[in-house]
Amino acid sequence: MKLLRVGTVGAERPALLDGTGTLRDLSGLVPDIDGALLADEAKLAQLRTAAASGELPRLDPAGLRTGPPVARIGKIVCIGLNYHDHARETGAATPAEPILFMKAPDTVVGPDDTVLVPRDSVKTDWEVELAVVIGRTARYLESDAQALAAVAGYAVAHDVSERAFQIERGGQWDKGKNCETFNPLGPWLVTADEVPDPQNLGLRLWVNGELKQDGTTAEQIFPVAEVVRYVSRFMTLYPGDVINTGTPAGVAMGHPEPKPYLRSGDVVELEIDGLGRQRQELKDA
Amino acid sequence: MKLLRVGTVGAERPALLDGTGTLRDLSGLVPDIDGALLADEAKLAQLRTAAASGELPRLDPAGLRTGPPVARIGKIVCIGLNYHDHARETGAATPAEPILFMKAPDTVVGPDDTVLVPRDSVKTDWEVELAVVIGRTARYLESDAQALAAVAGYAVAHDVSERAFQIERGGQWDKGKNCETFNPLGPWLVTADEVPDPQNLGLRLWVNGELKQDGTTAEQIFPVAEVVRYVSRFMTLYPGDVINTGTPAGVAMGHPEPKPYLRSGDVVELEIDGLGRQRQELKDA
Repeated sequence: MKLLRVGTVGAERPALLDGTGTLRDLSGLVPDIDGALLADEAKLAQLRTAAASGELPRLDPAGLRTGPPVARIGKIVCIGLNYHDHARETGAATPAEPILFMKAPDTVVGPDDTVLVPRDSVKTDWEVELAVVIGRTARYLESDAQALAAVAGYAVAHDVSERAFQIERGGQWDKGKNCETFNPLGPWLVTADEVPDPQNLGLRLWVNGELKQDGTTAEQIFPVAEVVRYVSRFMTLYPGDVINTGTPAGVAMGHPEPKPYLRSGDVVELEIDGLGRQRQELKDA
Repeated sequence: MKLLRVGTVGAERPALLDGTGTLRDLSGLVPDIDGALLADEAKLAQLRTAAASGELPRLDPAGLRTGPPVARIGKIVCIGLNYHDHARETGAATPAEPILFMKAPDTVVGPDDTVLVPRDSVKTDWEVELAVVIGRTARYLESDAQALAAVAGYAVAHDVSERAFQIERGGQWDKGKNCETFNPLGPWLVTADEVPDPQNLGLRLWVNGELKQDGTTAEQIFPVAEVVRYVSRFMTLYPGDVINTGTPAGVAMGHPEPKPYLRSGDVVELEIDGLGRQRQELKDA
């Protein structure tokens, strides 16, 4: 299933994009798309049956904003330098084990919402990422099979980053990762059953129409199953948590000088095979 | 006011410790103690009036668990190396500007709940900290007065830390800061009007009855007002967010070898002047 949330900020309603590409209203069946729903296999089965019946109410997509596809995200764990090609472009050594950092859930916006360049920022950068959405509590997992069973689905995430804040301001990457609007998510949460191989997804990102990132999750140093298993040894993952699994090569920081960091007026578009497409316009905070 | 939440995990009810030390039930007046309440000055004034009347229902504290004093925390921003004496003991240079890292809200437990030593941990450490609870949205603040006006109140936080995970596992402190149960908070949220000088509070921590930390917030490199103002330039703070403002000297990592890291069976007690006392027993995860 492709689950999504549509409507104005803070008043999104749950919806589904069915097999024919028709937008369907789920608000008669579930209050929202969140960790509680993603942990409820019976309810998810009911949604699948309802979707297949073709009898869910249609929604007219015209003029309808798409919000982030998950409400009440508990935490966002991010994996740093998780693509061979991106590690090379930043001049960093290939990590021996995953690098973890955090984004606050309040950084999440819809896939086409405005992204704000922070005040005093001169190094706002883009990062297309495969987001993993958790559907089952994951704590000290021991196998890849357990790890994949904890995944409810996948989505496109834009891990917007301010490189000066992240690297040049006295410590810990979180400082450049948590500015408001810095985590566009969506358009859809695609349930894991429809993503047979998360290690074979193309990811692309354009700035003002120019292709900047053109990677594949086959380049991930630590694949999704290993990431989920690894994270679960350091923190407990709960339904509705999100993992941003890292970005491929092609970020502004990896360009020669003068690096093409984002400015007000720029337009970023990004997509992942089967997971949909985002488009954000940058504005000054 | 001293606001708190009492009851079993996930079913806490809002309460108040009045001027006579009597526990009073607030559940007839407010649904919970959270960001929405802390941002609502009229409702807080109503609670103050009710507390002064002496007519709020009494609660019998016998056998009653104390939960964390704030529900639905949005994010926890932590300040690293924010005490002159702690920076010295770790051998780190005094930071030129605040070091920021994050803890997930799901690490928060009550002040007397069990703290779990993570599996494979040999360096679980203690840190008594002054927690600042936000009551007003803080975004690009320009003055100390604005910063202090955004503070709803203060609480004791235990910023439990696994030093090997934090420092020796390939990157970013968050990895050793987000294990389950790693942020006991409370017992109370003491409203800011009752903490006239947050830079003059004694903080103490004992392990198995032995005093390990005995500091004062006067030693903070970046005081509360500066911390709130600084953080608000990198991320937006919302009502119900928490800032852990750093720990004074005396952590296990600062001891000579063999460093006395925490193990199952240890008991940690901590307190801050006017903000109450915590007591946790350590167990294996």
